[in-house]
Amino acid sequence: MRPTKRPLVGILMGSESDLQVMEKAAQVLEDFSIPYEMRISSAHRDPEQTADYAKHARERGIEVLIAGAGMAAHLAGALAANTTLPVIGVPLKSGTLDGVDALYSTVQMPPGIPVATVAIDGAKNAAYLACSILSVKYPDLAGKLEQYREKTRKSFLNTGKRKVKGKS
Amino acid sequence: MRPTKRPLVGILMGSESDLQVMEKAAQVLEDFSIPYEMRISSAHRDPEQTADYAKHARERGIEVLIAGAGMAAHLAGALAANTTLPVIGVPLKSGTLDGVDALYSTVQMPPGIPVATVAIDGAKNAAYLACSILSVKYPDLAGKLEQYREKTRKSFLNTGKRKVKGKS
Amino acid sequence: MRPTKRPLVGILMGSESDLQVMEKAAQVLEDFSIPYEMRISSAHRDPEQTADYAKHARERGIEVLIAGAGMAAHLAGALAANTTLPVIGVPLKSGTLDGVDALYSTVQMPPGIPVATVAIDGAKNAAYLACSILSVKYPDLAGKLEQYREKTRKSFLNTGKRKVKGKS
Amino acid sequence: MRPTKRPLVGILMGSESDLQVMEKAAQVLEDFSIPYEMRISSAHRDPEQTADYAKHARERGIEVLIAGAGMAAHLAGALAANTTLPVIGVPLKSGTLDGVDALYSTVQMPPGIPVATVAIDGAKNAAYLACSILSVKYPDLAGKLEQYREKTRKSFLNTGKRKVKGKS
Amino acid sequence: MRPTKRPLVGILMGSESDLQVMEKAAQVLEDFSIPYEMRISSAHRDPEQTADYAKHARERGIEVLIAGAGMAAHLAGALAANTTLPVIGVPLKSGTLDGVDALYSTVQMPPGIPVATVAIDGAKNAAYLACSILSVKYPDLAGKLEQYREKTRKSFLNTGKRKVKGKS
Amino acid sequence: MRPTKRPLVGILMGSESDLQVMEKAAQVLEDFSIPYEMRISSAHRDPEQTADYAKHARERGIEVLIAGAGMAAHLAGALAANTTLPVIGVPLKSGTLDGVDALYSTVQMPPGIPVATVAIDGAKNAAYLACSILSVKYPDLAGKLEQYREKTRKSFLNTGKRKVKGKS
Amino acid sequence: MRPTKRPLVGILMGSESDLQVMEKAAQVLEDFSIPYEMRISSAHRDPEQTADYAKHARERGIEVLIAGAGMAAHLAGALAANTTLPVIGVPLKSGTLDGVDALYSTVQMPPGIPVATVAIDGAKNAAYLACSILSVKYPDLAGKLEQYREKTRKSFLNTGKRKVKGKS
Amino acid sequence: MRPTKRPLVGILMGSESDLQVMEKAAQVLEDFSIPYEMRISSAHRDPEQTADYAKHARERGIEVLIAGAGMAAHLAGALAANTTLPVIGVPLKSGTLDGVDALYSTVQMPPGIPVATVAIDGAKNAAYLACSILSVKYPDLAGKLEQYREKTRKSFLNTGKRKVKGKS
Repeated sequence: MRPTKRPLVGILMGSESDLQVMEKAAQVLEDFSIPYEMRISSAHRDPEQTADYAKHARERGIEVLIAGAGMAAHLAGALAANTTLPVIGVPLKSGTLDGVDALYSTVQMPPGIPVATVAIDGAKNAAYLACSILSVKYPDLAGKLEQYREKTRKSFLNTGKRKVKGKS
Repeated sequence: MRPTKRPLVGILMGSESDLQVMEKAAQVLEDFSIPYEMRISSAHRDPEQTADYAKHARERGIEVLIAGAGMAAHLAGALAANTTLPVIGVPLKSGTLDGVDALYSTVQMPPGIPVATVAIDGAKNAAYLACSILSVKYPDLAGKLEQYREKTRKSFLNTGKRKVKGKS
Repeated sequence: MRPTKRPLVGILMGSESDLQVMEKAAQVLEDFSIPYEMRISSAHRDPEQTADYAKHARERGIEVLIAGAGMAAHLAGALAANTTLPVIGVPLKSGTLDGVDALYSTVQMPPGIPVATVAIDGAKNAAYLACSILSVKYPDLAGKLEQYREKTRKSFLNTGKRKVKGKS
Repeated sequence: MRPTKRPLVGILMGSESDLQVMEKAAQVLEDFSIPYEMRISSAHRDPEQTADYAKHARERGIEVLIAGAGMAAHLAGALAANTTLPVIGVPLKSGTLDGVDALYSTVQMPPGIPVATVAIDGAKNAAYLACSILSVKYPDLAGKLEQYREKTRKSFLNTGKRKVKGKS
Repeated sequence: MRPTKRPLVGILMGSESDLQVMEKAAQVLEDFSIPYEMRISSAHRDPEQTADYAKHARERGIEVLIAGAGMAAHLAGALAANTTLPVIGVPLKSGTLDGVDALYSTVQMPPGIPVATVAIDGAKNAAYLACSILSVKYPDLAGKLEQYREKTRKSFLNTGKRKVKGKS
Repeated sequence: MRPTKRPLVGILMGSESDLQVMEKAAQVLEDFSIPYEMRISSAHRDPEQTADYAKHARERGIEVLIAGAGMAAHLAGALAANTTLPVIGVPLKSGTLDGVDALYSTVQMPPGIPVATVAIDGAKNAAYLACSILSVKYPDLAGKLEQYREKTRKSFLNTGKRKVKGKS
Repeated sequence: MRPTKRPLVGILMGSESDLQVMEKAAQVLEDFSIPYEMRISSAHRDPEQTADYAKHARERGIEVLIAGAGMAAHLAGALAANTTLPVIGVPLKSGTLDGVDALYSTVQMPPGIPVATVAIDGAKNAAYLACSILSVKYPDLAGKLEQYREKTRKSFLNTGKRKVKGKS
Repeated sequence: MRPTKRPLVGILMGSESDLQVMEKAAQVLEDFSIPYEMRISSAHRDPEQTADYAKHARERGIEVLIAGAGMAAHLAGALAANTTLPVIGVPLKSGTLDGVDALYSTVQMPPGIPVATVAIDGAKNAAYLACSILSVKYPDLAGKLEQYREKTRKSFLNTGKRKVKGKS
């Protein structure tokens, strides 16, 4: 994609317990050789660091932010309030509710401060969305995404055929 | 309650459209002669001012914060993240949902950063709760609250009698 | 905080099965050396005792009440109806629903009788909120809360760094 | 049904604004010539009167209680906690939610203290249910209910025929 | 209660998988020495038998019906449509939803055909409610219910004391 | 489609207030020249007539049933329990909820007794679905449906072009 | 039903993980000797194949489509958009929500493009509904369905009797 | 931003009734001088055109897609299935539900095919998000966004001051 290894994507999460889900985003970015950095940064436990991270992200060369948080999930919104970079929010299931609390807290943002929200626990898709966003600027990434789609389609078809063999 | 008029309660709201509901909190505080100040301060549109307000509230003599916000309502949480004063959250109905988005965004806070949440659009109760909290420190306020309760009870009984007169 | 060990906080719960969650509130209060008492008292199984507890709480020196209950969770509301002290409600998950029944039954109180509601199963935050409320009256508690926040922030940052080491 | 006019059914509601809906219950009882009394009595604003009403209802000759309340609707539960008479709960829509808060607060009662819950705003059905309950003791009421059902069925069929005339 | 053992309560359920929950209703009735019968009878798999059961219940001496069903729970409503006896509905959790489907299908009945709905999986309370209803006709049952309440209250208090011993 | 005018589709609804929505189903059937009949028949107010209608529908030449009902919407299920013809359920919004009660009561049927459920208030689609079902047997109807789809597509495109003219 | 073994029903699912639930539909069709075929075909991962399958289904002799999918379940709708055959949608529970996401995505179709939706995870009922639809054209299938209903009813009654034996 | 007027953003909507809300997205893009085109294109009524639009969008120079749809809102997902460009989904309130159906249908996408979802009826934010995404490639747009934020903040503060004047 480009020679330097300066991170293009910042993955943030509100708590270390979110790591297990959010690592899936990191894995996808690695598959696409997109340099990234990963941080635990809570909108509530360390609001200043969270705001600072967002404020300086663009000048540090970060181009997309991914934020995963559960319950009253303010992390993505707190980042979006402090940067004009695209911020992708991953609502995480935690606590007793099914993640609907995090979904509402992430997606229902007021006019002017959007968060690009993906499915509950949808860390993988956050990374795929980051790839799509970066593909606008980096044409070779568009090609890689097309190849990935094609490969998935074929593997998907093959698995399907093997699994339902002899069913009809 | 005390001679000076320095505000004891700070009422904040995320948008000027929240004023109509939040003014009911101000009215209750006036009924109890509790000095307050009212501000529009958005966790998303002006995160820095919001954080600063919370950080300096205690040293300015503020003792309770009330925050009303709708949708992905982060205001109360953003204040609570920046002060150890008690923060009361009022989830407001706005947008197409019934205020459940604001309720979840306000009440489902992570351990360590609590928000004292009242009913959807419950601005009045936010003020009554502020009175209860202040009554721990100011004994005369406890008395006023008891009188208010007693008065309400009686007026409530009288209205009830008048309304259902002749029904049994 | 003060020499005597007279309880400042009363923790009540609707059923003995709530003890496992509500003990977390007690633990937090112990960490802050705030004297408390803990009671099982059901708004439905023993309404009179529950009302009496609330009515005499202030004169006994109690300054904040915490009430945990599940399903049609009336305990916090029943206490609030009988005292002008601040009442913190903890909606508990029990039965087949995710605790939304308890959340609505606790938070949607009518004007004049507020309950300071925290997250579903949020017993810890109920205690932190009690500390915030008491910190209005007891300045040293404000300091302790600030120290706790600072300590949490640092431990949080260290854990974060250790966990995501080598990820970027 | 019986010579005296001592009320057999007590209709209670939490607020005078509930009267418009709850009067429909009274109307049904009048249609069946069942003596009743109607009271405004709030579980939160006057818990003592509410408890007293329930405690003395059976000895006063009341045989069924109907309670209508909105939001964190505790009225039916508060009555049921203080009497072993059957208590019928009518969850009322009020505030911004669709009455789901009142439904959960009314129906999700803990073991031992049941509330017979009807539909949201279902005041009419509360009265019909009271009639069914009383019909166990008063055989003539069973006959009246059967006649009412038969009459409804016929009128229902006729209306149906008239309305869809010429449609097939 | 009375010499004969003719069942006073009919407990019906929509499927044999409901037996585990609904047996709790039977246990409560046995504790109160109330004769009952238990049937599996589906509103959908055998609508005619279900209707017939309801139509002849009163003449057979049945005085209260209890119906437990899950998902699109029509059993209680189907019984209520065919009898003027009081019908108690127990919404059961089954399938992937938390029992909200059964709750809505049971409680949201149209005017004229009420179902006395208890909590999701609330089989015990269905039986306690049946006792309350029967206590209107059978005064000794009122006494038994009062004794049960008193016994529960005491045992409840003792358990509570033992459990939280040494906590304050 | 066929020479005789014997109805092929039976449209039933639980209450005359449902007529305004359900007439849209009739209109669609008329557009496709499919003979139908329309009845008001309540699963709760006249269960016997409802069961009888379903039992004799096939022998009378009816081939598809459409049932619209609100709240605890049992009509479609009650029909399906009494016929092996395909039954289409239309959950109707009525009462205070948004029709979710009717949706759950209609769609969550137990194994063996399916109801083909369409959108809340989706009377039109119930009729289009009836056409699809009938098109399996009547090939000319398949052609008509294709033509309708094509016509809709074109009119849709034209409207779209006209409306957004000059927008890009 | 008919001599050839050309499939009459096409069962599609969005992912191989849906196979475990959807095989229950296949089993029911086998019990009724209805020839079918089963395919994994994703509306999102291979939209073209999905559209093609639907477009050519009728000319290949397929008469009913069954589609199972989870989350933002578009499969049934994508098929319905490309065929005028009846399409039955099975919303599947997957991810953290209880299948309500799939239910809404399947049932809330716009006018003109209906999907016959069954219960969440209701694969069996999708097959029974397919049988009902086919019974309109194939009279012997109507007989088989009646026999199945009768057999179920009897086995149901017997199980019920055995299970609750000695309970009354 | 760049000399040519070739559209960079494609705004699509599922029905002409969505135009009133979606025009707000167009207005924002005009404010930022971002060339766009607007189309009505239904995933269900014209799936082929919808797929074709997505397939050829990138080669036509489109860089971001915005899709608004209600109910079982498949439009954004259908576009995402046919392009690797970033697709922003706007769930629209339509029908009787509050837009939750559209929210789930838009946001709960399966791995590999993400949709960047904004708030219900959040057309403005869809456009702001498009600007953020484009700002990664076009540095001058980042500057414009910063200016917009600053201007909003100031106007916001001024309005706030004027509105709450004299309140403290």
